[in-house]
Amino acid sequence: MARCLPAVPAALLLSCLPLALAMAPPADAAAPESRLLREAAELRDRALADSDAWQHAWSLTTEVGPRPAGSAGDRAAVTWALTRLADIGFDEIRPQPVEVAAWERGTAEARVVQPFPQRLTVTALGLSIGTPETGIEAPVARFESLAALEAAKPEEVRGRIVFIDERMERMRDGSGYGAAVQKRSRGPSVAAARGALALVIRSVGTSTHRFAHTGATRYEQGVRQIPAFALSNPDADLVTAQFAAGEEVRLYLYSSARNLAPTRSANVIAEIRGAERPDEIVIMAAHLDSWDLGTGAQDNATGVATLMETARFIAMMPRRPARTVRLVLYANEERGLDGSRAYTGAALQAEQRHVLGIEADGGGGLIYRFDSGVAEHAFPVIDAMREILAPLGIEGGDNTARGGADLSTLRAEGMPVLSLRHDMSAYFDLHHTANDTLDKVDPEALKQAVAAYASVVWIAANVEDDFGATVPGASD
Amino acid sequence: MARCLPAVPAALLLSCLPLALAMAPPADAAAPESRLLREAAELRDRALADSDAWQHAWSLTTEVGPRPAGSAGDRAAVTWALTRLADIGFDEIRPQPVEVAAWERGTAEARVVQPFPQRLTVTALGLSIGTPETGIEAPVARFESLAALEAAKPEEVRGRIVFIDERMERMRDGSGYGAAVQKRSRGPSVAAARGALALVIRSVGTSTHRFAHTGATRYEQGVRQIPAFALSNPDADLVTAQFAAGEEVRLYLYSSARNLAPTRSANVIAEIRGAERPDEIVIMAAHLDSWDLGTGAQDNATGVATLMETARFIAMMPRRPARTVRLVLYANEERGLDGSRAYTGAALQAEQRHVLGIEADGGGGLIYRFDSGVAEHAFPVIDAMREILAPLGIEGGDNTARGGADLSTLRAEGMPVLSLRHDMSAYFDLHHTANDTLDKVDPEALKQAVAAYASVVWIAANVEDDFGATVPGASD
Repeated sequence: MARCLPAVPAALLLSCLPLALAMAPPADAAAPESRLLREAAELRDRALADSDAWQHAWSLTTEVGPRPAGSAGDRAAVTWALTRLADIGFDEIRPQPVEVAAWERGTAEARVVQPFPQRLTVTALGLSIGTPETGIEAPVARFESLAALEAAKPEEVRGRIVFIDERMERMRDGSGYGAAVQKRSRGPSVAAARGALALVIRSVGTSTHRFAHTGATRYEQGVRQIPAFALSNPDADLVTAQFAAGEEVRLYLYSSARNLAPTRSANVIAEIRGAERPDEIVIMAAHLDSWDLGTGAQDNATGVATLMETARFIAMMPRRPARTVRLVLYANEERGLDGSRAYTGAALQAEQRHVLGIEADGGGGLIYRFDSGVAEHAFPVIDAMREILAPLGIEGGDNTARGGADLSTLRAEGMPVLSLRHDMSAYFDLHHTANDTLDKVDPEALKQAVAAYASVVWIAANVEDDFGATVPGASD
Repeated sequence: MARCLPAVPAALLLSCLPLALAMAPPADAAAPESRLLREAAELRDRALADSDAWQHAWSLTTEVGPRPAGSAGDRAAVTWALTRLADIGFDEIRPQPVEVAAWERGTAEARVVQPFPQRLTVTALGLSIGTPETGIEAPVARFESLAALEAAKPEEVRGRIVFIDERMERMRDGSGYGAAVQKRSRGPSVAAARGALALVIRSVGTSTHRFAHTGATRYEQGVRQIPAFALSNPDADLVTAQFAAGEEVRLYLYSSARNLAPTRSANVIAEIRGAERPDEIVIMAAHLDSWDLGTGAQDNATGVATLMETARFIAMMPRRPARTVRLVLYANEERGLDGSRAYTGAALQAEQRHVLGIEADGGGGLIYRFDSGVAEHAFPVIDAMREILAPLGIEGGDNTARGGADLSTLRAEGMPVLSLRHDMSAYFDLHHTANDTLDKVDPEALKQAVAAYASVVWIAANVEDDFGATVPGASD
């Protein structure tokens, strides 16, 4: 099947349009589906030409900015969403209160004390405790990886600051993250169990710029909690270079980070009610919260903006979809999926039937691949979706999609998912850093994203069949 | 004339070697020069193959790091230079005490107060005063350029924070800097003269990453001093975007920066004594100090390292040069050229005869062009230098070279200069920011630089003729 996008710059996306129009499904497609596929193709092309998700991203990053769960910015984001969604054409918009873990970053400082004193660019890991007021000064035990730390003898670690120098690999599918993030989430408890005083990691990020990458850590129950930090990649280089002299390397660390009593936030739920089967829900997920260092542009204003604009284009269709299309902007994805758990708990209790989910939390890169996680009987629908996506330069993938973090709680209950895979090659240069700002968002790539999400969701919300289990319970 | 470098990556530099060897000047060159030019070509090729300036840059950025004039890092840098130069083969090494302007950055903070509160990435400009302890909160008067501010009526400025939003243009020759830097050096006094409370500028830099660019400002005598700050480019975008709502934009600014009593630093002077005319000096200049935010890698560990390695290769020649080759690592270039003035003052007083100068302060980019600022009678020598440089991918330029900042005081006295122009396209992404770290230095580009500086200086230090006026006084 012809594609016009695979290697062309985003700015040329509009040149796909004539081809895309020519790609409307052939007349010999299964009769009940041909109108639907034609609608989806038209929706795709309209979205590619006219959507403007960037305006939503502009507004969220400019008028709200950083919005860590429980902060004033987070409250402003909820208000922003409730207000802005009102203009989009939903049938219902409501906040869903969520109790969220609260954490205060405070300030952090790190420096090499010896052999060659230098100040370091550092950030506290999310949910980390702070240091004593006088900080911590100790010799450094450096490990190439979390595995090397796990294999270390306690005497190599005891009374030291552990430095895990593991690098993250740059990959289009972002899969370097899953491997590298282990040292961030598990590192503090692994180090503490061996007697370390604090943990410092090389940032879980691919940027060579001097930004430290935050993100949540997780203390294991029953293990002493120690403060945990990330250094930017150049600063990790600098600490490693200090070992060249063969002398003891000592660091000073300070952090006033602290965990606070849980506070309130909200998921924001908006839906376009299904005309025929309103109780069957196709859920679109993005998270409204962000880390505090940047303005949360790639993570996840792009996802929020893309799905808001997707919903707007669906709401502008001449008819309502058969199923309900529900947009959920989740609270506190970053520091523990509180919004996800609250939503799913309530949805299960109310026996709301979730037929399918799709999440946008992979940044603003061009989408290059489409995966599913559905029952085999739905493969013909997936194939039809692939045909609709091909002119956008999106190739078909496999059936191993697991959805994103916010949908993981519904997925765990068996809900089928779709996954539009954004090119993440550059995503982890920005993700969770102060440098995650709007200027790195490509408006043209967002047009492709809206075209893809809108056309796929339109099909999903209108086909007769389901995609496997609905959640909760079996389909009727 | 054939060149092998114009568009090839630095990693391929070594592939020039066979061609370079083949480029030794033809036998019919003016007889007195042929041996010299052959030596220069051989020196060039040895330096291209074997030089390792990066090791010096590694050491200076790792073992010293930031070294703003008068700081502990600055003192460490002087000690570092005196120690490290001892291994290079100089005939004499000495520190020259210099009184330097002292300034303390303290901490800085900026945020949008309204319409949409956000924290901003900001840095105090060098030599700026601080704010009152409670900071300054005021409405913002935004100007597209320094010229627009100069044309403003006082009532548009009075009682406000002035924001100059002028962008710097990316240019290979770095000439965008000269234009954009005016707002940094002159901005505070222009704003204060019209009643402004503080000045904020868009960083004088080309990076879209979230680094604010520091650098010295200069208060005009007799004009009230106001605190001055730079925002990173994404933060300048953010402030500009705040105006979209049509409401008053208010900023809060805080800085504890302050000027201190002058303190001591030193130029470090090292020379390879001329075998025939030791009183005639060819001076090679770089500055040892750096700004405090990064580790001063591009600015100016690369220049220091390149010229140290250049000197090492000259010292390794089988004979001493006819003239003295003097390396001066200047103190406090960044905050006022104190080292330059001290050196030139003493040199004039002692009537030391400076025949020619060359400065390395353009970062670690590949050299693409060679300019001179010499008397016409020296053009044949310049032409010979061009032939030696051509295989390195360096094209001939013109005779308008003015030397760098540290040589400006000798240049003002009439000293001829040469200029090897480094590609500065990416330099101002890093210059004066926290991101100026070693990982962005390309070791292969430094090899080209050493080859170029060494071969040119070798010729200059050995030709019979002078290059125009010597400083001080006329040539004998």
